[in-house]
Amino acid sequence: MRAEIIAVGTELLIGQITNTNARHISRKLNEYGISVYYHSVVGDNRDRIKEVFKTALERSDLVVMTGGLGPTEDDLTKEAVCESLNIELVLDENILSMIQGYFSKRNIKMARSNEKQAMVPKGAFILHNEKGTAPGFYIKNGEKGIVILPGPPMEMEPMFDYYLSTFLSKDTTIFSKFINIFGIGESTVEERILDLIHADDSITLATYASIGQVVIRITTIAENELLAESRMKKILDILHERFGENIFSDEETTLPIKVSRLLYEHGKTVAVAESCTGGLISKIVTDQPGATKIYLGGVVAYDNYFKQRFLRVSSDLLREEGAVSGNVCRQMAESVASDSGADFGLAVTGIAGPSGGTQDKPIGTVYIGICSNGVTKVKKHIFNGDRNKIRNMAAMTALDMLRRELL
Amino acid sequence: MRAEIIAVGTELLIGQITNTNARHISRKLNEYGISVYYHSVVGDNRDRIKEVFKTALERSDLVVMTGGLGPTEDDLTKEAVCESLNIELVLDENILSMIQGYFSKRNIKMARSNEKQAMVPKGAFILHNEKGTAPGFYIKNGEKGIVILPGPPMEMEPMFDYYLSTFLSKDTTIFSKFINIFGIGESTVEERILDLIHADDSITLATYASIGQVVIRITTIAENELLAESRMKKILDILHERFGENIFSDEETTLPIKVSRLLYEHGKTVAVAESCTGGLISKIVTDQPGATKIYLGGVVAYDNYFKQRFLRVSSDLLREEGAVSGNVCRQMAESVASDSGADFGLAVTGIAGPSGGTQDKPIGTVYIGICSNGVTKVKKHIFNGDRNKIRNMAAMTALDMLRRELL
Repeated sequence: MRAEIIAVGTELLIGQITNTNARHISRKLNEYGISVYYHSVVGDNRDRIKEVFKTALERSDLVVMTGGLGPTEDDLTKEAVCESLNIELVLDENILSMIQGYFSKRNIKMARSNEKQAMVPKGAFILHNEKGTAPGFYIKNGEKGIVILPGPPMEMEPMFDYYLSTFLSKDTTIFSKFINIFGIGESTVEERILDLIHADDSITLATYASIGQVVIRITTIAENELLAESRMKKILDILHERFGENIFSDEETTLPIKVSRLLYEHGKTVAVAESCTGGLISKIVTDQPGATKIYLGGVVAYDNYFKQRFLRVSSDLLREEGAVSGNVCRQMAESVASDSGADFGLAVTGIAGPSGGTQDKPIGTVYIGICSNGVTKVKKHIFNGDRNKIRNMAAMTALDMLRRELL
Repeated sequence: MRAEIIAVGTELLIGQITNTNARHISRKLNEYGISVYYHSVVGDNRDRIKEVFKTALERSDLVVMTGGLGPTEDDLTKEAVCESLNIELVLDENILSMIQGYFSKRNIKMARSNEKQAMVPKGAFILHNEKGTAPGFYIKNGEKGIVILPGPPMEMEPMFDYYLSTFLSKDTTIFSKFINIFGIGESTVEERILDLIHADDSITLATYASIGQVVIRITTIAENELLAESRMKKILDILHERFGENIFSDEETTLPIKVSRLLYEHGKTVAVAESCTGGLISKIVTDQPGATKIYLGGVVAYDNYFKQRFLRVSSDLLREEGAVSGNVCRQMAESVASDSGADFGLAVTGIAGPSGGTQDKPIGTVYIGICSNGVTKVKKHIFNGDRNKIRNMAAMTALDMLRRELL
């Protein structure tokens, strides 16, 4: 089954909003084994909506449309679709009274234009809107399916998720596995799996990169999970052999989530002492709900006096070796661990730029240290990129050091 | 001039990432008076890229493509375009040595696959990539223009912005002003400027919202800047009258940048004590280069003992009033200011959820305090939304409190 998504709305074309609907729908369809081949965005213009819809209906089995269901004259999606398919729009009394109820419950006078939202394509399956006034529609046209959804994500997402199974005639299933790698660049990963990409036609491998992290997605189409797993096992084993401890997870996850889970499973806590990352590590760890169980706190010691006062870094050491040094990093990790009572003290000090680099310590020089059970390890790194990238790489590499400590 | 945007990448079609590039490009083109008629997304498939490109070239004057310029076999954008236009791909020695330099500077061995990135469409104008290895291209094809850009936003955005004027045949000039408002919702702002939106046909007003911040963009097309400014002055004056101190800037900026600049101009420093925001405020402030002059450090006191140990919050107070209380917030702000020697101590304690709410203190309850010259102010807020939104609103509102203190 081949699907595509059309978003209708000039606000997308002028860049006022981002098309997050396409992502949500794509993700969900993929989870159910439906491949999405195209996304399109078209403005609030009847002829252009019809043109894009026609192309989509020719090449895809399922066309999912979002937006253009509002009460104004600019909202033209169902009108354009009905014209294209030669279907009448008829007033649905039930929907009209529901819309009237929606407004009266909120003590708002219904605008006359809202009546337009009670016009439905004749014979369409109605998708109820729990969060707003515009209903959605599912139209069967021969072998093809057309889904029409409202544009606001808070109305679209629950509607789509609720009715999803209605739109699908599952005959094949796609199974995916994810190998998450930290600390090896995307092109190097690609090179090291080149032989596997073409080894087996029934299995596809693709790589995706984000900060320091490369995901290999292994996908196969099969009649059942058992068959899929046995087919993928060989490749998974080879990948584990090749990438070893650089693999941090076999599930669809991120390094921060994985590290949080490991801490949680081991019943351990962490405290953080940061300089150049400026709170980023603490921010990333506390992005996760429930961080309170594994994260005690952090000190962002940007200024040298702050390092002395809050982390007991010695002023002699700061003078002799500088704030960006292995021994300062060591003291930061040890102090934050012992003063907070955390199982792990994680520390970062470095130069994120754009200024502050020297010949000895160029921009990107970062010391990362970890203290646990009275033993402290410190490692020097040199990261590339701009301030943002260096800070992110430093934060992620610190979390990876903690992960390795937890193994 | 009619433009459209094609994003290439299966990662978009499986919903792994959102097409933010289309938004950025649309917005910029619109600012320069170029209408965008379509967005498309297509996967890493040669035939489908060619098909979508062909349709685009037929109906548009400017086709902007993003993604598919990486070093892997999946990266096919320039190959597909060159085949469609019958243009050869040739090795560019300059680019090759630049790519080699990029890697050697970083002490990384260049993967052989990176050589692919030095292949350029014959006769194309090269767009240099300041942030990565893949160059972009601008191809003139008769009256039509084709722009090919790398996919990662941090590479694409600066490249597109820098070369934008190259792609455009500017005959009119658009002038814009930005009014940045904090603390009033977008729909309220819209309502309060409704009369201005239709007041003058030569001026357009549009609003854009991000966390807590609403930007009103005032645009006019004119022969010269003087004329444009005199035309916009009346509207700017009215907006200042209506929104007063909620306006934090008349330039295109963000609240964190504005606050950093104010601190810098006044020669003042800040230190931060955070609980529920978990390092986010420190992270935001230190995102800016040069933060070292205005930001001394921060304490992320997540755990109660951490609050006692690092911020001298009294255990009696924690027991009697709870960690989320005005008096704890006050002690946090006062301790971090006096112990660090900062001019301002900024403190946040609250409940970001998804758990931890009570009847008295529901999720979203946040106390924000500021201490300066021995005087401390604390304000209670209740923010709506999920964990992420509450944390961001709390951080931004804290920065806005600091801004008002600096006025």
